[in-house]
Amino acid sequence: MAGTIDARLTELGITLPAAAAPVANYVPYVISGNQLWISGQLPLWDGALKYTGQTGDAVTVDEAADAARVCALNILAQAKAALGDLDRITRVVKLTGFVNAVPGFTDQPKVINGASNLMVEVLADKGRHARSAVGAGGLPLGAPVEVDAVIEFA
Amino acid sequence: MAGTIDARLTELGITLPAAAAPVANYVPYVISGNQLWISGQLPLWDGALKYTGQTGDAVTVDEAADAARVCALNILAQAKAALGDLDRITRVVKLTGFVNAVPGFTDQPKVINGASNLMVEVLADKGRHARSAVGAGGLPLGAPVEVDAVIEFA
Amino acid sequence: MAGTIDARLTELGITLPAAAAPVANYVPYVISGNQLWISGQLPLWDGALKYTGQTGDAVTVDEAADAARVCALNILAQAKAALGDLDRITRVVKLTGFVNAVPGFTDQPKVINGASNLMVEVLADKGRHARSAVGAGGLPLGAPVEVDAVIEFA
Repeated sequence: MAGTIDARLTELGITLPAAAAPVANYVPYVISGNQLWISGQLPLWDGALKYTGQTGDAVTVDEAADAARVCALNILAQAKAALGDLDRITRVVKLTGFVNAVPGFTDQPKVINGASNLMVEVLADKGRHARSAVGAGGLPLGAPVEVDAVIEFA
Repeated sequence: MAGTIDARLTELGITLPAAAAPVANYVPYVISGNQLWISGQLPLWDGALKYTGQTGDAVTVDEAADAARVCALNILAQAKAALGDLDRITRVVKLTGFVNAVPGFTDQPKVINGASNLMVEVLADKGRHARSAVGAGGLPLGAPVEVDAVIEFA
Repeated sequence: MAGTIDARLTELGITLPAAAAPVANYVPYVISGNQLWISGQLPLWDGALKYTGQTGDAVTVDEAADAARVCALNILAQAKAALGDLDRITRVVKLTGFVNAVPGFTDQPKVINGASNLMVEVLADKGRHARSAVGAGGLPLGAPVEVDAVIEFA
């Protein structure tokens, strides 16, 4: 029997990616008490980056926002792998979004909105989170965006 | 009846800004257990950035430290909005400070001290926190500094 | 009587550095509930940076990975100062690694592996952590790497 959030994903026509394996020696998530800490997720889909390069150069702001949305889908995929059922999520506590962009770029919030909007779209009020959106001097594999998360669950 | 910390703010001649609205689709804080997670705060005062531009160029180190102090005032404003009374703070657990600066800049600690000093000035030992101070490749709205926080409360 | 982890350090021939004093007005760690939050650690050894400069320029990827390992040794030194005994660590929850590198650098994971590998080498499964590895626009004192940590303990 599919959970409420699974049904919501289906209704929205959203498919989660396979939970991505870490690109190095760490684990994709750790549970501590009722907190699920999820490693920085890249915009990976079927094992390849959906976008590569700097925002404002190879990647537009809209594309970077879509990349952030894919990061958020990967966060949900990890949460499902960790918790078994997304209905166990009681609150997305914090997202930290890092944007790889050209010098002088100031639209980090527009980019990370791609992740924030997805969380609220799927999880409604439980998806409303605290957030930091900042520029990075560079990101793994040349990704335009990386997002990590702390999620509370029951 | 004003709380002890409110009285301390008055004694120090410090006025908190209005708790700033998020510049995108997220919330300014989330409570999880006895932890208050506060979104990255910019040096906003009355709805406008007090400083804009890169540290070491448009903004001096001293100005950036003052900007970090304003970020910390916004953190306290959010904490007051969240908790009702700043006396409920039992400990500032962690500040993460991001500094938008020219290439080769190494004085991130001096800049973020503007936030750290304010916390200890207002909250005394309860304001003593763990901290990371790092360079950002750029920040929202072209701000020189962004600071987020995790605060423990009772 | 030395603890199990102390014995493991000896077996590995690893000496911890002296717990480094903060380079500004904050504390090296804060305990909140059963979480130990450790401030961003630089690759300091005996009070001096073991490496200085940007990864990909003054510092090679292998040197930066060794610098990240030294950051992790400093994290363990702080954990020992905080907890008295490293055997109290039940899980390294999260490492966030910031890499100061030349523009276009994409090997942040290889660099931060220096910290991740050390944690697993010393703490085995308890050292397996969630992680974010990102580029920084610059770091304190011109360090190539900074790593902070959240550790669960009993």
